Amino acid sequence: MIIGIDPGLTRCGFAVLEAGEVVEIGVFSTRQDDLQEFRLLEQHNNLRRLLTKFNGADCLAIERPFLTRHNPDTAFGTAQVAGIAMLLAAEREIPVQLYTPPQVKLAVTGSGAAKKDQVAVAVSKLVDLHDLPKVADATDALAVALTASMRGGATQGVNSGSKQTSTQTEAQKLWKDALRAQNNGNLRQI
Amino acid sequence: MIIGIDPGLTRCGFAVLEAGEVVEIGVFSTRQDDLQEFRLLEQHNNLRRLLTKFNGADCLAIERPFLTRHNPDTAFGTAQVAGIAMLLAAEREIPVQLYTPPQVKLAVTGSGAAKKDQVAVAVSKLVDLHDLPKVADATDALAVALTASMRGGATQGVNSGSKQTSTQTEAQKLWKDALRAQNNGNLRQI
Repeated sequence: MIIGIDPGLTRCGFAVLEAGEVVEIGVFSTRQDDLQEFRLLEQHNNLRRLLTKFNGADCLAIERPFLTRHNPDTAFGTAQVAGIAMLLAAEREIPVQLYTPPQVKLAVTGSGAAKKDQVAVAVSKLVDLHDLPKVADATDALAVALTASMRGGATQGVNSGSKQTSTQTEAQKLWKDALRAQNNGNLRQI
Repeated sequence: MIIGIDPGLTRCGFAVLEAGEVVEIGVFSTRQDDLQEFRLLEQHNNLRRLLTKFNGADCLAIERPFLTRHNPDTAFGTAQVAGIAMLLAAEREIPVQLYTPPQVKLAVTGSGAAKKDQVAVAVSKLVDLHDLPKVADATDALAVALTASMRGGATQGVNSGSKQTSTQTEAQKLWKDALRAQNNGNLRQI
């Protein structure tokens, strides 16, 4: 099972892919006129519920935010929501994969320079989704999940259900061992 | 009581100011060769312990990260740790204040263009700190806490101890009422 996230403070897309099928897809929204700390807490609570519901996920795939000079405030909010998703995954020992937008476009359309609507059409064919999600962020989250699936970011199409199964990849095992070692001894105290 | 934070993934400075005295100061560090999600989780756990220890704080003052083209990776990590601090404060109903580096320099030295060592010297005089912290990030966190104290970001020099006292500012009351309303009803479900 793979959870895909297109991070954002105003709209955070999510999609859950299991054995090639979409089992959950949507967008978590916050109000732009709320204080930023409220909105971060709200997206944290939304993502926490999602990860708790799909706790056996093999991978959390996140679209890596891009830094531009033109949208510093948006970029920071996006980076912050991505960071929150990452720490929630680390808490649950779910391996994280980050993909840049060109990597996602290349994986689902065959071209790193594909347009938004080309990505949406390609995604709908890949998962046999008749009704495209109306919000682009949801489609983008699904595209990221598909990218992880195709690039082997997680055990493809397998819902492990528990944390210790023979279907874990070698990378996942190493990741979880490292996390366990850190949680057991190396956290610094105040 | 004011908690000041100079956010960073590798080094996150913190300082706690109470009635004009420094009651806690230091730096939370993470290893650069660990995975980013581990480091975010580690800084999250460090900051959570700090905010739990000083749960009656009137304000969490954070140095606002600056976006530059030259350090995109550092800027993202910094933004993410700032975001984590903000959501931990929101969870605990501690009001958040963000200050830019020039605002902090102006508040503690009288010049928005002051150098790092001028800030350190000014800070040490303001709080009668004989031994300057050896790590700049700790001094910077103290400077942010002092800025909040001087600019009225929190009830100055008062340790409220509880969440409902007559020493709360009007802004703090409004902030907490808004947060309570949000927590009570408006969180969107999956």
